[in-house]
Order: sequence, then C-alpha cells, then structure tokens
Amino acid sequence: MAKHNIAVLAGDGIGPEVMAEAIRVLDTVANKFNHQFTYTHALAGGAAYDEYQDHLPQATIDICKNNDAILFGSVGGPVHLQHEAKWANCEAKSILALRKAFNFNINLRKMTIFPEIASLSPLKPELLKNGLDIVIFRELLGDVYFGEHTLSEKDGKRYAFDSGAYDEDQVKSIVQYAFNVAKTRGKKIVSVDKANVMAMSKLWRQVANEVAKEHPEIEYSDMLVDNCAMQIIKNPAQFDVIVTSNLFGDILSDELSVLSGSLGMMPSASFSNSGFALYEPAGGSAPDIAGKNIANPIAQILSAAMMLAYSFNLHQEASAINNAVKAAIVAGYRTGDLASGQAGEKIVGTKEFTDQVI
Amino acid sequence: MAKHNIAVLAGDGIGPEVMAEAIRVLDTVANKFNHQFTYTHALAGGAAYDEYQDHLPQATIDICKNNDAILFGSVGGPVHLQHEAKWANCEAKSILALRKAFNFNINLRKMTIFPEIASLSPLKPELLKNGLDIVIFRELLGDVYFGEHTLSEKDGKRYAFDSGAYDEDQVKSIVQYAFNVAKTRGKKIVSVDKANVMAMSKLWRQVANEVAKEHPEIEYSDMLVDNCAMQIIKNPAQFDVIVTSNLFGDILSDELSVLSGSLGMMPSASFSNSGFALYEPAGGSAPDIAGKNIANPIAQILSAAMMLAYSFNLHQEASAINNAVKAAIVAGYRTGDLASGQAGEKIVGTKEFTDQVI
Ligand SMILES: CC(C)[C@H](C(=O)O)[C@@H](O)C(=O)O
Ligand SMILES: CC(C)[C@H](C(=O)O)[C@@H](O)C(=O)O
Repeated sequence: MAKHNIAVLAGDGIGPEVMAEAIRVLDTVANKFNHQFTYTHALAGGAAYDEYQDHLPQATIDICKNNDAILFGSVGGPVHLQHEAKWANCEAKSILALRKAFNFNINLRKMTIFPEIASLSPLKPELLKNGLDIVIFRELLGDVYFGEHTLSEKDGKRYAFDSGAYDEDQVKSIVQYAFNVAKTRGKKIVSVDKANVMAMSKLWRQVANEVAKEHPEIEYSDMLVDNCAMQIIKNPAQFDVIVTSNLFGDILSDELSVLSGSLGMMPSASFSNSGFALYEPAGGSAPDIAGKNIANPIAQILSAAMMLAYSFNLHQEASAINNAVKAAIVAGYRTGDLASGQAGEKIVGTKEFTDQVI
Repeated sequence: MAKHNIAVLAGDGIGPEVMAEAIRVLDTVANKFNHQFTYTHALAGGAAYDEYQDHLPQATIDICKNNDAILFGSVGGPVHLQHEAKWANCEAKSILALRKAFNFNINLRKMTIFPEIASLSPLKPELLKNGLDIVIFRELLGDVYFGEHTLSEKDGKRYAFDSGAYDEDQVKSIVQYAFNVAKTRGKKIVSVDKANVMAMSKLWRQVANEVAKEHPEIEYSDMLVDNCAMQIIKNPAQFDVIVTSNLFGDILSDELSVLSGSLGMMPSASFSNSGFALYEPAGGSAPDIAGKNIANPIAQILSAAMMLAYSFNLHQEASAINNAVKAAIVAGYRTGDLASGQAGEKIVGTKEFTDQVI
C-alpha cells in the first residue's frame, strides 16, 4: 500500500469539473489497488485572484510544497473579459509563476491518435498510419520566457526589446531526459532549433549533438523549426520524440496537439531536476463550455495517470487508467468534441464518460 | 511598351533551371505585350562563394542596385556538405545579407490551393473548401534576426544570449501594408503575436490595433502564435490575410506552405519602403533533384508574375501568367511532385510543364 499526497489546483473554467472526474478515477484506483491518495485543494488563476488578488498566491505555493505532486486543471477566463484584472494575462501570470516557483524546466506532452477516433484528425488518414504516438519535450525556464522584456522610448518612438538565454546545463538537462525516454520508446529523437540564426539554438544544437554521441543506439537528427512546422503536417509518422527550446516548444506542441482532432486528449507533465512534478491537460480552461457537463475529461484523467507513473512509480495503476480510457473509446463512448458521426457512437457527458472509464 | 531591367540571381540547386523557365515565360509575355525585359545575371549563395569566397558579393549587390527589381532563385547545398565553407549556413548568409542590403522589411507569401490538385494537401478535403487563397505578411528586418547573438562563457559554462527589438515604425510599416492588401481581398486580417510573454509582441499588438482603428471596414483580430499554429491546421479557411513578426512569420509561413501539398507552388515577394523588391519561390534549392528536369517551376514562374504586378504595374500581364499556370494544371499537366494518381494526369518535366504554360 502506497500513500501519496496530491496538491490539487483545479483552476478556472472546465478545470474544476474535469478535475472532479480525474479524482474519481484516482479514488477508484486507490480502492482497487489498496493505496491512499490524499488531496489538498488550492486556488490558482482567476479563482485565486478573487480571494487573494494574486493569480498564484503564496498559500497555494506552500500547499504545493507540502505535497508529493501537483495535479493542475486549467486557468483563464472568457475572451470578452480579458480587460478585467482578474482575467488579464491570467494564464501567463499563474502558469509562468508556478514553473518558476518549482523550477519546472522539463515539459513533456504526449500526442496519441487512437485509431477509433482517427477520423477526427484534420490530416488525411494515410498520414496517421494506424494511430500515432509522439512525445514532445519542451524546455520551460530559459529562452525569451525569462529574459528581459522592456517597452520604452527610443528617438521619440515606442521601442520594444526582448532577450533570452540558455546555459549548457539547462540544455543538457532536458536533452538528456528526452534521450532516456526515447530509449524506452521508438529510439528516435529529433532536436529542433533555429541554429542558422540564433545563438541559443547554436548552443542547443552543440549540446544535443554531444548528448547524442553518448547514446549511439538512438537515431538522432537536428531539424530547423520552420522545417519542423512543415514536417509535423506533411509526415507526422516520422516523429517519435521531439525535444526543443521553450518558445519553439510552445508553438510546435500546440501544432502537434491538433493532429488528434481534439485538444481535450493531450496530457502533459512538467518536471524539475529534483523530480518534483506537475501534471496538467495541454488544453485551456474553455470557459464557454464550463459547467455544462460536456467537457472532455480525458486529458485530465491521462494527466493523473502520468502522475501515478512518473511521480509515484505506480506503473501498473497508470496502465490501468490508460487502458480504461482506451476501452471506453473502443466501446464507442464519446464526449461531444469527439463525435464523428460514425455508427455505434454513444455521445455522453463528462461524468458519464468517466463512469465508463471507472 | 514598357522597358524593365531585372537582376537575376538564380543561385544554387534547382535555382538556375527553374529560373531559366521563368525567363522563358517572361520573354513570351514581353513578345506578346510588346515590352522589353533585360536580364542581368549575378551570383548568390554557393555559386557566388566559388567565385568570390562570399555568399553575397558586392558585385552582386551593385548589379541589383542598377536594376528595377530582383528575381531570385534559391540558394544552399546538400545536407551532407554543410560542413564545407561553401555551404555552411549558405542560406542565412546570402538571404539575410540581401534583406539587409536593400532594407527589405516586408515579405509577402501567397498560399493557393488549386481545386484540381487539392488532393495533394495533407489536410482533409472538407477543410479546404473549394480551394484556399491565403496571404501571409512577415516582417523581415526586426525581431531576433538582427539583434545581438552571443556565445560566451558564464560561471565556467557555455552561455548563449539572443536579443531582438522592434520600434513602432517598423511594425506600423508592415501592418499598414497588410491592411492595404486586405482591402483588395477578403477584407479580413489576423495579426499574430505572443503578447502574453514578449514585449515586442505587446508593441506589435498595440500598433496593429491602432492601424486597425483606421480601417474599420476590415475585420481585424489578434491571435497568439501557439493558437495560430493550431488554427492553420484545424480551420485554414478562417484566414484571408495574416500579418506577423519575423520569427513567427518564418515558422507560420512554412507551416502554411505545406497545405497546398507541394512546396513548389508558393511565390513570395520582399519589399522595402522605397518600393524596390525581390521575388523568389518560398521553397529551397532542393539539390537532390537539381539538373534532372523534374523540379516544379510554378513558384518561380508565379514569383515572376508577382514582379510584373507589384514592381512594374503590369497587372494584365501578371494575370496572363497566373491564368496560364492555372490552365496547365486544369489541362492535367503536372511535374512529379504534383502527381496524385488521378486519371488524366500528364506527368511532365520542368521544361515541358513550362511549354504548356507558354
Ligand atoms: C500562457 C502561456 C504563457 C503559456 C506558454 O506560452 O508557455 C501557454 O501557452 C502554455 O503553453 O503553457
Ligand atoms: C535561411 C533562413 C535564415 C531564412 C529565415 O529564417 O528567414 C529562411 O528560412 C526563410 O524563411 O527565408
């Protein structure tokens, strides 16, 4: 029997409702495998702002510190309310602060295309082979994200300046991690940069090549980011593991996420070098569909499964969840976003889909 | 009768052979419409390096200065020779120097999906409606491209630093241009940035919103770059004109270019504020297929048509070329990259395709 304490930051929009479903799934696992999971809820995003006038209050950070892992929902408000202090840049204020507070430097997102719902993909079926499974690693603490950002005046004109940086250890840390994961998979890794223009990318490529030399069993190549943006659409099946810097990872992981046809499918994990981690769906808080029992809980449930595997070493339990999600899809259960009009589909709500998983 | 002098920089790989075809088309137009086009050839890329040990020699710049427009092919060598001085970073050395030398700050690329070859697109047919036609504007002289790039040591570790900047005039210049083009088209424009993180993007968004206020007849919206990378795949038909900064434009224009199914289809133009311009295919030099009479000449031919329209104000002549290319496609003529296996297709070489256009 394992005991684990989980900080739960459900956030805004659909966050709380898909989080409730993920917790029901975790409780089922706890029951079945005789573990004990304890949840401590804390506020983040707009929900935190209401109470603390702060999108990531110290109280929340403290709760996270006292737990074994963070299960995160999503944050952010409706487009038409972005001018309010509560919602203005809410995502960046909450998420970047959380990454910084816990030194989460490695982000992993997994894009899976289940053959049963491959028809939802915007890509033609022949490009998807029999389902795809691609992992993208994105560095989270370097690059332009944590550099200098200034808006000033120069020669009487408004002037904007940004800078970004990487040191070799930052690059080595994530590239090494990505290689270790590649070893357990298709043994193929592509490192993405813009080495023909940027110094950060030149260093990135140097270090990635050095790490690659230590892993001769893994097929390694470099790719320019503009080319990668094309290749993800032209021939996604060529990819197994992608590793890239912060800004390119932001763009490419989102591009990759739509191949599955629904943003509601992609789980993600963020790790620090100490091993502490946060798990969250890659999609946003979708305030327009919140509270209607129609949100897709899959990404949140699969994020919880990742937590079991990566933070608690409960691999059998994680597989049980992954298989149960797959089984619900195979049995024809779909939330509305996954409806493709095929015969035998049963369109159900957030809760009812989770009932099937359970 | 119009007289125009054209600097021709054919470059490397397939550059010279598709350029030869574009010139045959231009000569046909000259003949038919009774104009006189004079071509002055100059070296760029690997071809220039052989003669001058310089990827963009002063001799070439001088020739460009003495002509009314630049028709550019493509530069760059094979992947396995990138370690040679001739080919190492050849594209960046030639192209960035050219942009800088002539202050080409505005890049325009046009993505057209012809219904006849829409089946080549990696996207599902229902996403392409009855062919698509999207223009993307990319700023070319600001951003991280012309900032500081340093590789150094810090605390005994290799350290890489990049910076980028924009002033309001740089942003206004291209956004204003994009709005003027939007007026002649679908009257819809999307400005793309990363304003939740970068100062350059915050300024970009401010200025774009100001320019938008002067054009109330044009439907305007802002979009984050990560979202745009998704939307281009999920629902490309929502776009008419996109305008964005240098680095995002590099990534998004390449992503957009593959929707048509072949990189050999996309023409582009680069303008300076003085009106001087360069025209080139968006694709690369494809050294692996060079000299085999199989390269697709369409992007080069359509780039020449853009030159007639934008630099020489010969709109009827430009339309004649555009229509002739369309007619060759409608008649079933295809270079190998456009083969889709449909009945009635006639697969022909670079020259033979151009014969049909002519
Ligand atoms: C909200 C924003 C700052 C964030 C990012 O760019 O990292 C988001 O897009 C993400 O990918 O997590
Ligand atoms: C060669 C390279 C520097 C260039 C760029 O990034 O601008 C190229 O990718 C392009 O798009 O013209």
